Amino acid sequence: MKRTILSLLTLLFAINLFAQFGAPPLVSPEINGTDVTFRLRAPKAIKVELNGDFLPKKEIETPMGKMSVPAPVEMVEGEGGVWEYTVKDVSPDYCSYTFTVDGQKMLDPSNVKTVRDGQNFTNYFIIAGEKSDLFLEAEAKKGTLSKVWYPSNAFGAERRMSVYTPYGYGESNKKYPVFYLQHGGGGDEDAWPTLGRACQILDNLIAQGKAEPMIVVMPNADPNSLAAQDVMDKLPGPSIFSLGMESEELHSGGNYTKDLVEDIIPYVESHYNVIKKKESRAIAGLSMGGIYTLYTTPRHPELFDYIGVLSMGFTPERDVKAELTPIKDAGYKLYWVGCGETDMAWANAERLLKGLDEMDMEHIYFGEVGGHNWDTWRVCLKELAPLLFK
Amino acid sequence: MKRTILSLLTLLFAINLFAQFGAPPLVSPEINGTDVTFRLRAPKAIKVELNGDFLPKKEIETPMGKMSVPAPVEMVEGEGGVWEYTVKDVSPDYCSYTFTVDGQKMLDPSNVKTVRDGQNFTNYFIIAGEKSDLFLEAEAKKGTLSKVWYPSNAFGAERRMSVYTPYGYGESNKKYPVFYLQHGGGGDEDAWPTLGRACQILDNLIAQGKAEPMIVVMPNADPNSLAAQDVMDKLPGPSIFSLGMESEELHSGGNYTKDLVEDIIPYVESHYNVIKKKESRAIAGLSMGGIYTLYTTPRHPELFDYIGVLSMGFTPERDVKAELTPIKDAGYKLYWVGCGETDMAWANAERLLKGLDEMDMEHIYFGEVGGHNWDTWRVCLKELAPLLFK
Repeated sequence: MKRTILSLLTLLFAINLFAQFGAPPLVSPEINGTDVTFRLRAPKAIKVELNGDFLPKKEIETPMGKMSVPAPVEMVEGEGGVWEYTVKDVSPDYCSYTFTVDGQKMLDPSNVKTVRDGQNFTNYFIIAGEKSDLFLEAEAKKGTLSKVWYPSNAFGAERRMSVYTPYGYGESNKKYPVFYLQHGGGGDEDAWPTLGRACQILDNLIAQGKAEPMIVVMPNADPNSLAAQDVMDKLPGPSIFSLGMESEELHSGGNYTKDLVEDIIPYVESHYNVIKKKESRAIAGLSMGGIYTLYTTPRHPELFDYIGVLSMGFTPERDVKAELTPIKDAGYKLYWVGCGETDMAWANAERLLKGLDEMDMEHIYFGEVGGHNWDTWRVCLKELAPLLFK
Repeated sequence: MKRTILSLLTLLFAINLFAQFGAPPLVSPEINGTDVTFRLRAPKAIKVELNGDFLPKKEIETPMGKMSVPAPVEMVEGEGGVWEYTVKDVSPDYCSYTFTVDGQKMLDPSNVKTVRDGQNFTNYFIIAGEKSDLFLEAEAKKGTLSKVWYPSNAFGAERRMSVYTPYGYGESNKKYPVFYLQHGGGGDEDAWPTLGRACQILDNLIAQGKAEPMIVVMPNADPNSLAAQDVMDKLPGPSIFSLGMESEELHSGGNYTKDLVEDIIPYVESHYNVIKKKESRAIAGLSMGGIYTLYTTPRHPELFDYIGVLSMGFTPERDVKAELTPIKDAGYKLYWVGCGETDMAWANAERLLKGLDEMDMEHIYFGEVGGHNWDTWRVCLKELAPLLFK
């Protein structure tokens, strides 16, 4: 009887461990320094490819001309139908990948680290190095990430946001500054904490004394959603993008920027120990979140002393001087623009930078990043966060 | 220029939406009442199967004899390489599924709802009905889920737990009771909030006035981990299961039950607005978490007035009377046992129930559940939570 119960529990545990019953688990990815080996058991497959943002690039044709994208590589079948491929000298970074088995994209069943970008999932791994050290879990003194439903008058419903509170929050009456951080089009309140590694970056920077302890509020900035689409279906009706780049609805964020100013900030300031002053509020956003940052800051120049625009700037139809004047008049402590020259929003960023120059508005430009992607935005957060509230 | 920027942003958004470039997105699963249609675009595939816990069962041979498990069904290829299958009259419930494409298990790329059980991922959907209504997001008055790193002296490191605070928490000085809820072997601090739908069940029960507003603490109860394995690698060394069912280490939870009593409870009671009394503490656990509940409660009869054991009971080597006596002597308000007769831990549960009877200890037995799985444990939580703190 004892043996039976032991067997039962052992089996149950084994079932948990062995995704493919009867076959030993594979190690994938196996990281040896900067060499990474990928493995997939697929005995019936004819062709297995590895797709990864760390693979050498090739040029492809797109509707907008040539683009340089990482080229998939063919994996090699070995014993027991296990396909394998080793990538040498992977640059230390946050790396994303998937497999394609006979034309079918799939996740690596041996890697529990997955991440969602909108509707798409990829696997990831992190190789430690100068660029990526802050993306790893901090050794200690880690903050808390909360998924908070707050009442939104702008939407007439509860909406969900991610709130990071730093290590030690709540242990005293200490009040904290707040950084409101917006995602881009297609994203949601999970984007910055997962793809953006926001908690790890802040934990590390704060533990190292490089950033002020702060609360980071990462709302759902999608005016067509109440929460991430794996939690709640999108709202009925057309996407704000379908209204076109010239539409005031897109620039104003539809109900979102109203929600931010009238619902989110008051909720945060009445539910958390925060300093309710302009000098203790920061706002930033990437791409669509950058548009909302550009729209909100001149209309509420009393709110934020720290402004960050990532991978965005002014579209041609905006009156740059009119948009920047209220900010200049009210005063601010930091205007930070992060955008690489290969970013598809670079022309917009250039218009913003030109406007700041022409108006003699002090600002910091950071351009040591690539395209319009999370590789850029993680690095931007690393650069921007230490400058806030100082 | 305007058109170019519009195109760029539209393309970016389209890339987010279209997992397979050039092909229109599929709807899968498509739910019409209780009929559910699954779709997968796989033009090169020879055979595509649907695996789901809602499919008709068949008997298979296992090392422990015959088991009845849901049988995969073959999907049918249609236009454009889209495979399809409709399941009629799916019982309203939380339903899990995956596809198998030419022998390769994969997730449904059209369904953003995925869930992790240990190392394995599945898709899921919920069909509303009497059994499953509480598993859906509540209409309003939703609580907050936090991922909290707390200092563990027992482990000499920070560990992570999930903490649910009910709607309205923190809006006044109101103090709340606390329910400490343990997962099973192979699980982690994400198991109850995801697979167990704990937040949705509590939100709904509290909003309907059927359960007391309470804090639910869902620790990582795995003594071989500091946090879920997608956040941190397992600790080095053998699993506690490898020590065998007779080992005191398994029953005592290694460092875990020490951590619960000496680290987790003191942390919760010093960081949250809680009532620090036995009558305001509940403990429950499933399977391995049930073993820990059975172990902890007699050794700390001063701590919990509400005790729940799910899919577990006493293994033959335990002295049932000695284990239950301290609880009887100290007094308690609820002893709840949830286990179906087809559960592989049923013999253990029978020993527990027999002991409670023989010692004239008042208790509630709930057996309207099936096997050793999350279908059982979600229903158990629905039944148990309304009985707490009343």
